[in-house]
Amino acid sequence: MKYFFLHLGLFSTLVLTAQNHSHTGDEPFQYPDIEGYLTLKTDLHMHSVFSDGSVWPDIRVQEALMDGLDAIAITEHLEYQPHLADIPHPDRNRAIALAQQEAKDHDLIIIPGSEITRSAPVGHNNAIFIGDANELLQEDALQSFKTAKKQGAFVFWNHPAWYAQSPDGNPVLSDFQKKRIAQNELHGIEVINFGAYAEESLALALEYDLAILATSDVHGLIEWDYANKGLKRPLTLVFAEERSLDGMKEALFARRTVAAYNELLIGKEAFLIPLIQAMVEIRDVSYIKNTSILRLELSNNSSSDLILENQMDYTFYESSPVVHLKAGQSKIIQVKTLEVLKNLRLTFKVLSAYTAPKVHPTVVWDIRVDTP
Amino acid sequence: MKYFFLHLGLFSTLVLTAQNHSHTGDEPFQYPDIEGYLTLKTDLHMHSVFSDGSVWPDIRVQEALMDGLDAIAITEHLEYQPHLADIPHPDRNRAIALAQQEAKDHDLIIIPGSEITRSAPVGHNNAIFIGDANELLQEDALQSFKTAKKQGAFVFWNHPAWYAQSPDGNPVLSDFQKKRIAQNELHGIEVINFGAYAEESLALALEYDLAILATSDVHGLIEWDYANKGLKRPLTLVFAEERSLDGMKEALFARRTVAAYNELLIGKEAFLIPLIQAMVEIRDVSYIKNTSILRLELSNNSSSDLILENQMDYTFYESSPVVHLKAGQSKIIQVKTLEVLKNLRLTFKVLSAYTAPKVHPTVVWDIRVDTP
Amino acid sequence: MKYFFLHLGLFSTLVLTAQNHSHTGDEPFQYPDIEGYLTLKTDLHMHSVFSDGSVWPDIRVQEALMDGLDAIAITEHLEYQPHLADIPHPDRNRAIALAQQEAKDHDLIIIPGSEITRSAPVGHNNAIFIGDANELLQEDALQSFKTAKKQGAFVFWNHPAWYAQSPDGNPVLSDFQKKRIAQNELHGIEVINFGAYAEESLALALEYDLAILATSDVHGLIEWDYANKGLKRPLTLVFAEERSLDGMKEALFARRTVAAYNELLIGKEAFLIPLIQAMVEIRDVSYIKNTSILRLELSNNSSSDLILENQMDYTFYESSPVVHLKAGQSKIIQVKTLEVLKNLRLTFKVLSAYTAPKVHPTVVWDIRVDTP
Amino acid sequence: MKYFFLHLGLFSTLVLTAQNHSHTGDEPFQYPDIEGYLTLKTDLHMHSVFSDGSVWPDIRVQEALMDGLDAIAITEHLEYQPHLADIPHPDRNRAIALAQQEAKDHDLIIIPGSEITRSAPVGHNNAIFIGDANELLQEDALQSFKTAKKQGAFVFWNHPAWYAQSPDGNPVLSDFQKKRIAQNELHGIEVINFGAYAEESLALALEYDLAILATSDVHGLIEWDYANKGLKRPLTLVFAEERSLDGMKEALFARRTVAAYNELLIGKEAFLIPLIQAMVEIRDVSYIKNTSILRLELSNNSSSDLILENQMDYTFYESSPVVHLKAGQSKIIQVKTLEVLKNLRLTFKVLSAYTAPKVHPTVVWDIRVDTP
Repeated sequence: MKYFFLHLGLFSTLVLTAQNHSHTGDEPFQYPDIEGYLTLKTDLHMHSVFSDGSVWPDIRVQEALMDGLDAIAITEHLEYQPHLADIPHPDRNRAIALAQQEAKDHDLIIIPGSEITRSAPVGHNNAIFIGDANELLQEDALQSFKTAKKQGAFVFWNHPAWYAQSPDGNPVLSDFQKKRIAQNELHGIEVINFGAYAEESLALALEYDLAILATSDVHGLIEWDYANKGLKRPLTLVFAEERSLDGMKEALFARRTVAAYNELLIGKEAFLIPLIQAMVEIRDVSYIKNTSILRLELSNNSSSDLILENQMDYTFYESSPVVHLKAGQSKIIQVKTLEVLKNLRLTFKVLSAYTAPKVHPTVVWDIRVDTP
Repeated sequence: MKYFFLHLGLFSTLVLTAQNHSHTGDEPFQYPDIEGYLTLKTDLHMHSVFSDGSVWPDIRVQEALMDGLDAIAITEHLEYQPHLADIPHPDRNRAIALAQQEAKDHDLIIIPGSEITRSAPVGHNNAIFIGDANELLQEDALQSFKTAKKQGAFVFWNHPAWYAQSPDGNPVLSDFQKKRIAQNELHGIEVINFGAYAEESLALALEYDLAILATSDVHGLIEWDYANKGLKRPLTLVFAEERSLDGMKEALFARRTVAAYNELLIGKEAFLIPLIQAMVEIRDVSYIKNTSILRLELSNNSSSDLILENQMDYTFYESSPVVHLKAGQSKIIQVKTLEVLKNLRLTFKVLSAYTAPKVHPTVVWDIRVDTP
Repeated sequence: MKYFFLHLGLFSTLVLTAQNHSHTGDEPFQYPDIEGYLTLKTDLHMHSVFSDGSVWPDIRVQEALMDGLDAIAITEHLEYQPHLADIPHPDRNRAIALAQQEAKDHDLIIIPGSEITRSAPVGHNNAIFIGDANELLQEDALQSFKTAKKQGAFVFWNHPAWYAQSPDGNPVLSDFQKKRIAQNELHGIEVINFGAYAEESLALALEYDLAILATSDVHGLIEWDYANKGLKRPLTLVFAEERSLDGMKEALFARRTVAAYNELLIGKEAFLIPLIQAMVEIRDVSYIKNTSILRLELSNNSSSDLILENQMDYTFYESSPVVHLKAGQSKIIQVKTLEVLKNLRLTFKVLSAYTAPKVHPTVVWDIRVDTP
Repeated sequence: MKYFFLHLGLFSTLVLTAQNHSHTGDEPFQYPDIEGYLTLKTDLHMHSVFSDGSVWPDIRVQEALMDGLDAIAITEHLEYQPHLADIPHPDRNRAIALAQQEAKDHDLIIIPGSEITRSAPVGHNNAIFIGDANELLQEDALQSFKTAKKQGAFVFWNHPAWYAQSPDGNPVLSDFQKKRIAQNELHGIEVINFGAYAEESLALALEYDLAILATSDVHGLIEWDYANKGLKRPLTLVFAEERSLDGMKEALFARRTVAAYNELLIGKEAFLIPLIQAMVEIRDVSYIKNTSILRLELSNNSSSDLILENQMDYTFYESSPVVHLKAGQSKIIQVKTLEVLKNLRLTFKVLSAYTAPKVHPTVVWDIRVDTP
């Protein structure tokens, strides 16, 4: 019926306008690149009305644009389809296609994905970088994993500590999963899902060399789950050689990730330490006149607060050994070096970061003192 | 497949949690009742994925609960169905049913509705309190209106000033519409739609005795269209004898409404004046000792700012004749009554309200002075 | 005693640091220049511990620097000296000298002043641009005014409506004052003092051609009297040919002022209208494609909110005729010009400004439409 | 001169009004009492115009009232009098008397005090609970200490790490001071002064059994030094048997204190641990149905953020082992107890608190699980 052409004009305008606004009070995410790699901000687990979510895929794209993400994966449950009566689509790639269409004029990468959903011991698993979601829908979960591998997918275990599948809240690695890992069919694990950090999941990631991931698993609105509660969505930071589907895929298979959720940063030392080093810029280094007190400004150019504890023999003048360096802000510290130095190895334990259960990384910054 | 039962538990929990949070920085709407009527807060025009919106109907219900609304109407386009390929539902009542199901444990009334959508001269029209949306879907718009009438529906003209249908931005009342009004098939008109107040629409409402309405016409998220821009959604305040579908229907047919959008309030004197009177509570009335200066506190117990201009012969001590009384806040004014009075008729023109194009209402409050 | 030299260093540092911070949440005042004149921001009435205030004069200077003022006058009561037992200074210019010393490395002009303080009918009066405050301290108020005139001072009547001197809150112009005006010994009048606007004072200003002034009359802290209550201090905007003591003195004697207090602006048309014109920048003027709706952006580049009411025959698309244009913010309006125009005289009544009691100015902006 | 009586009325009103407002965005300080003691909030080091400050003593009282303090000490330098030419008062108790007069109708205790000010090695020292400040003004510092002792004063060393007296920023305890301690003439030490925490000062406090203190040492405005920078003033929390001068004096001599500055809390275990225990209320303790996950809400009923690190063998479900529990806010944690318990000893290391240099206290809360 021809009388709708004008109509379309109005409402697409409205939707586009909305994209110019970020979530209230929140800026797009900022994380610096590290030596040799781009730092890509990704959310690899989310749902729309095409499985059990409550929004059309375009909302997921707009949320990601507001947040300044580099990539998202739409990962509908293949088997769990509560809206099936209303949306009887035969093609399980449909949500991905709609997200790609919404994103086509924007600088956001849509990673094709799907969720393979079972009770324990298989559990919930996301396959991303898939070729065709339909082929993954099989009665036997084993076949789903085999097919994912055939498609070249990167597969990760979702919310391993979920109490609905593990009543003590601890992840239990089943024989099924151990075999998937052994056969290179399972490559990653969520250590953070919808706000939940499980250090036991981190232990598994380290023991079995799985990529360390954080995802929102959003079903409703990012705004309601996070921003309106003063929180930021979980992110997987991916350290890639190029900003592309291939670049991210290579990086994920190489386990080059850090999980980020508000102030919490979790990853292997090889990536977490250079990331934190890059997050802190050090400025205006000079001695207070006629003293051996070295003044310097620490500036946090990322979206994560840092809680730092002094590990040097030198103590601070005018501040606690525990420095709370908020996202996007800067702080002056004054180090009592006892004599006037030319160089200083500034050394902090990062209390808000983990490289293993209960293990905080120690990060150093080598500073040259400006001569007056 | 049986392995999803546990799963359902988790995600319904998440969704329910979200309902406990209001839009960032915003409180639920508050408007006081007026003499003889309850003041019901309604949004009578909104869309979901079942026509050209971007959310499942449950999100509309949750938004309304956060905003403390009494009633909403889900009004899908019958004829404009951009998601038809994915949602080929035969039943045009489906969105309504889903909203009713989501609302069933909450104190929110879902009004069944539909949008009858044509090019000019018919334009877009909402029919609410309908019996069966499917019957309204007819090739001939005239038949749609006839059927709506048969179902007992209340019908209103949407965004009459929409430039896509009227390039000078002014509403043009066609012969078709005049006949609908004459035959009691068109009963209301949006004077505010998605933030747009058109005083020419108000002129038509008054000339043809149409109910004065304000609606959000939301397609995306209330949060993004309004809250994140520091705005509140448009509301139709309905003055009803009872808080029920029947109560609201009777009130709308009786044209007992005020359109509210942020500080803007538009309605007939008969309802606008008692509403504004009820919105302002006057407290602590007493003379400053040894003076003829009467001190009183004005408290705005509503969600709309009031811009008031003094119309008395008496002037104020220590404040401008224009008093900006913000939503939910109070202000002290001091009236120079020249002699000590026992009663005062406090009189303001309300610059933020209209009873007709360019006409502000004058509102009085009769005050008895507390004797010391 | 020699052991304090180091000490001085520490605390002057602390005080200087404080100057870098504005009052919480507030920016320095911004008002644009007008054709032919610089717009200077001044507060011409304030006290320190040298009469009945609670701060040393350096605090007054620092407050003014935070607020971005061009000039202040320290105006101690000559006769009212509650701290006399502790501060028995023989020289009534002392507070001025201390303020000048604190301001000497900053771009702030200190105007020498004093308050001549009596009961009614003389009342309280400020003399500024004085030569020597000591000479103004005389038993007979008449002699104080004569001496002020001899020194070339600009003299204004403080808080004329103050109920302690006029129990009905209305200014009473005494014979004494009428003579002072007649003999060119009284030149200005506060229409706003500590938040109090009196339209009767404005009437007197107009009747007797007195300069229209607004002052804080601060005794405690600007922060507590204004900023912490969400208010801004009252200012007298002085339209001067040069930014100097002489420039301001010439401008004040010429009555080139506007009184400003939050959204309230009060002055003669000759200065108020060009000021408001300069306060609003108009940008991005163009027609919405295929319509006769002219879209333009109004930007308020001042520290005062503007409440504007459309006075054109043309109405607005999508906004109320009353436009609340907040300080430092911008708003888009869309004018329904019915046909495509090349020029438009945008015309608003400014509801937040007065040129006389109950009289709002009407301000126009001539706009050239950008041709596509 | 008789014409000022009315005048006095006006301005004292203004000043009293200001007292009803707290610093922007800040609430009065809140710290709970501990077992056996009242927790009194004090600032024991501040200046007015009567030495080198910039405000009259009434401002110090009003600041303290806004902050909800229990007691303040006005501690003017006896020897350093930069305003002497203007304020040649012979009585060094004058600032104290004025503060007492301002406070007389409020629930604030004014502790008489004075600062004994010398270069190193004597340094700056505050004597509080003194009898007569004048007697402390002596050429020989030794005599000042002896007199303070005779008056029963509590004496503490100010900003021991001040680089102007110790260029490496470390406190140096001189023979003079060691003797004062030995002869019970020096009883406390500032570990925090104007924002500066020095762990070396804490080491001295512990080694020599000195009371641990934090003070603002304010000269200008609390508002500018702290509130406008998003900080709170330093406080000494005094654990007293009664809320009186005597009560506080007894408590200070008994070294029952904790130094508080924003999130930083420093004190001996005997007081710091019960304080932190009392600061956290634990609510709604229950197991998630069908799991061994214990859910509980931690509520911080104080004005200091707490940074807590889990020390139990049990880990958390859905949160980091580092819990940032903000002042006045609450957080839900979920403990994975592996089996359903009847009691739990919740155990955290408090990363934002110190009992000795680099030593965080470990605090436990014994919880009884609500049986369903």
